[in-house]
Amino acid sequence: MSDTATLEPDVVTEDHEALDRDYVLTAAFVEKVVDAADDGNGSRLQSLLEDLHPADVADLMGFLTAEHRAVVVVWLPPELLAETLPELDDGIRDEVLDRVAPGTLATALQELDSDDAAAVVEDLEADQREAVLSAMPLVERAAIETSLGYEEDSAGRLMQREVLAAPLFWTVGDTIDHVRAEPADLPDLFFDIYVVDPANKPLGGIALSALLRAQRDVRLAELMEPVTEITVDQDQEEVAYVFEKYHLISAPVVDAAGRLVGQITVDDIVNIIQEENREDILRLAGVSDESRGAGVFRVVRSRIPWLVVNLGTAVFASLVIGRFADELEALVALAILMPVVASIGGNAGTQALTVAVRALASRELTSSNAVRVLGREIAVGAFNGFAIGALVAGVAYLWFQQPLLSLTIGLAVLINLVAAALAGILVPLALDRLDRDPAVSSPVFVTWITDSVGFFVFLGLAGLILL
Amino acid sequence: MSDTATLEPDVVTEDHEALDRDYVLTAAFVEKVVDAADDGNGSRLQSLLEDLHPADVADLMGFLTAEHRAVVVVWLPPELLAETLPELDDGIRDEVLDRVAPGTLATALQELDSDDAAAVVEDLEADQREAVLSAMPLVERAAIETSLGYEEDSAGRLMQREVLAAPLFWTVGDTIDHVRAEPADLPDLFFDIYVVDPANKPLGGIALSALLRAQRDVRLAELMEPVTEITVDQDQEEVAYVFEKYHLISAPVVDAAGRLVGQITVDDIVNIIQEENREDILRLAGVSDESRGAGVFRVVRSRIPWLVVNLGTAVFASLVIGRFADELEALVALAILMPVVASIGGNAGTQALTVAVRALASRELTSSNAVRVLGREIAVGAFNGFAIGALVAGVAYLWFQQPLLSLTIGLAVLINLVAAALAGILVPLALDRLDRDPAVSSPVFVTWITDSVGFFVFLGLAGLILL
Repeated sequence: MSDTATLEPDVVTEDHEALDRDYVLTAAFVEKVVDAADDGNGSRLQSLLEDLHPADVADLMGFLTAEHRAVVVVWLPPELLAETLPELDDGIRDEVLDRVAPGTLATALQELDSDDAAAVVEDLEADQREAVLSAMPLVERAAIETSLGYEEDSAGRLMQREVLAAPLFWTVGDTIDHVRAEPADLPDLFFDIYVVDPANKPLGGIALSALLRAQRDVRLAELMEPVTEITVDQDQEEVAYVFEKYHLISAPVVDAAGRLVGQITVDDIVNIIQEENREDILRLAGVSDESRGAGVFRVVRSRIPWLVVNLGTAVFASLVIGRFADELEALVALAILMPVVASIGGNAGTQALTVAVRALASRELTSSNAVRVLGREIAVGAFNGFAIGALVAGVAYLWFQQPLLSLTIGLAVLINLVAAALAGILVPLALDRLDRDPAVSSPVFVTWITDSVGFFVFLGLAGLILL
Repeated sequence: MSDTATLEPDVVTEDHEALDRDYVLTAAFVEKVVDAADDGNGSRLQSLLEDLHPADVADLMGFLTAEHRAVVVVWLPPELLAETLPELDDGIRDEVLDRVAPGTLATALQELDSDDAAAVVEDLEADQREAVLSAMPLVERAAIETSLGYEEDSAGRLMQREVLAAPLFWTVGDTIDHVRAEPADLPDLFFDIYVVDPANKPLGGIALSALLRAQRDVRLAELMEPVTEITVDQDQEEVAYVFEKYHLISAPVVDAAGRLVGQITVDDIVNIIQEENREDILRLAGVSDESRGAGVFRVVRSRIPWLVVNLGTAVFASLVIGRFADELEALVALAILMPVVASIGGNAGTQALTVAVRALASRELTSSNAVRVLGREIAVGAFNGFAIGALVAGVAYLWFQQPLLSLTIGLAVLINLVAAALAGILVPLALDRLDRDPAVSSPVFVTWITDSVGFFVFLGLAGLILL
């Protein structure tokens, strides 16, 4: 989406402000669009929309009904339509794409950089895709097909093929003259120049500001600095990590033979970072794949699997309780208090596992410091166990005035918090070692352990101490 | 940290690779550093360190003990030391800063852009800060003091004062000549030129690639595009939202009078996005403020508050159970099964609230679509409630062979999942309306509700239906 970067159109369209202070479309503006769409007033719609940023057009689409969207799409200027497509939510994009004629779409896509165009084509149905591609010039078509040939979520998919490469013997002046001649493969927006050898392998990079600062007769070889190369098959999460760690603005992408085939820019990386973070948060909460604006059935499908798994672990915990039916019948206070032990254990486990999952994702937790981190977690669990265990014992004593019952629950909380600390760190580490995403299944395992251990230890100790 | 952007030093230092394929320092390399530090071999340390990227030096510091860090700091070249400081974890940075003489630090800080220098000075103790500032030239000192005058987490703190501004009547050639003359206030790295009026108010921006593409005699007025202005007092989270939404690479910062006072670049934004995401995930798990590498006591302090709150809600849930002591005594199966109702409700509530918190953060959930989203959540809760309720009833029947008990628990699960859906969306919305961060306290409230409702409905229904 680099072609729109740094540029935001005037937010005042026609006679009013389209955006409020928080950069959200105003209700008044959305209403005007709805009115114009209802009236079928195309020229009014065009004047309302033409100055909007594509990101705001996409937001607008989210606020409209499908009927109004159908009208708006017809009146969007082709270039704005093209730039809006990559910004739309998946569901809405599918709907919009269904309504645009293949010829119009083929024209619109040529306005985009190859990565954005490929991302749109990727979403088309097979027959629509064929129709759109065959309506495109051969070069653009080949670029999109090459891009789609790379694996999903790989650097190859993410990169744009347009890139500014220069041979080592060029001077600053040669480079500027080359750019001013506007060669066909020049990206719309770029931040670095890559210096390549005769085999097209990157030798180094020069930031545009460094190029601008240098005199015309300076050789690129003197300005060039080492660059971090990305390979086409690298996973996008890996690419995002490198950009973040080294504060990159753009990076060259090379094929298996080390030849320059494209570049990745930071604006695409920001989207990936947000997407990966969103996924992590939702996975930790047991939500598998929920796109915004999804319908009820899709939401159900994204949430019910983990609820079923949770049912399994909850029944297991009940089986543990069932083994202590005699104790429960003898002392109803046990039934009243036992959820406290499980609940506090579950929360402590969630704290520990969340910290561990984050540390694994940011590579702060590695096999070289796992033992030290484990030791720290156990110490934290023991300390919290003493503190919270004492509090719980005190509360139980005030309520039931039975010293041994208080002792039992205090001990149970202590033991369960240590178990929670162990589970909270070992479960994510084990999943990571097995090459599984620790965010996905850690919470299930950890609460399974803290529930079962909590009930078992509390009721078991009660049998030993009280009865 | 923009001065190191796009440039990564060769990862091969001396006779071996410092980084493995995942961009993590190899154990072998860390060992060599440790050996050299133990031997007090300064020239060996220098040759090991000099080619590392500052981000890798910071990682290295994290792997070393305090004693080894003290040796390494002495041998780090001043410029590398300066660039490493902003990359260090807070705890380690404080420790390193304690060991560097004010004069050395004052020299090192002049290598940094004003935002990074201010971020380091901010962390110094009052007397050390005074010593460092008074050892700096007046201009740099004033820049840092101005920066620290802005509120924490504001755009003013985040921006660098170095910015390239050009008057409207300049041509491309004028601008390039100006940059080649290397004026003192030129940023190390920049991506956009801001065109300003005589009062220094931004009129528009030009991407460097657009400038480079144009002929020398083209006027900036012809190339200029509208820019998104940031004001000095905007919150950094707000700034990150704007960068992300409009795919900005840099943006001009203006004071209250609208005059250009600096710029913010996307590399700083990436850090903020990661930091805010990290905070959100940890807050949802009830971890208040845990920096990486924190000691046991700090970790305890960051986790115990929510455990205490959780103790309160768990005791409340037990009070609910306590009201049904008669029912529990009459039928021990109730005690065995009741955690299932609470556990499934808690998980469904967590799913709903996590989705709601994310949607609020990304401004997809606003007052204009809250009712629609609420309706969807209730539908999802009811559907999941029927499905999971039926499953639970089936399991209970297989176990206890009591049809009425099965009916009771099935109904309780259904009701609790609808309650979970309601709580999961209404609690975050209410907190947001009250200008509280919904990530911080939503989980407590929601599980409080699902636990209490779960026990109350299950045991209450049991009293009505079974006894």
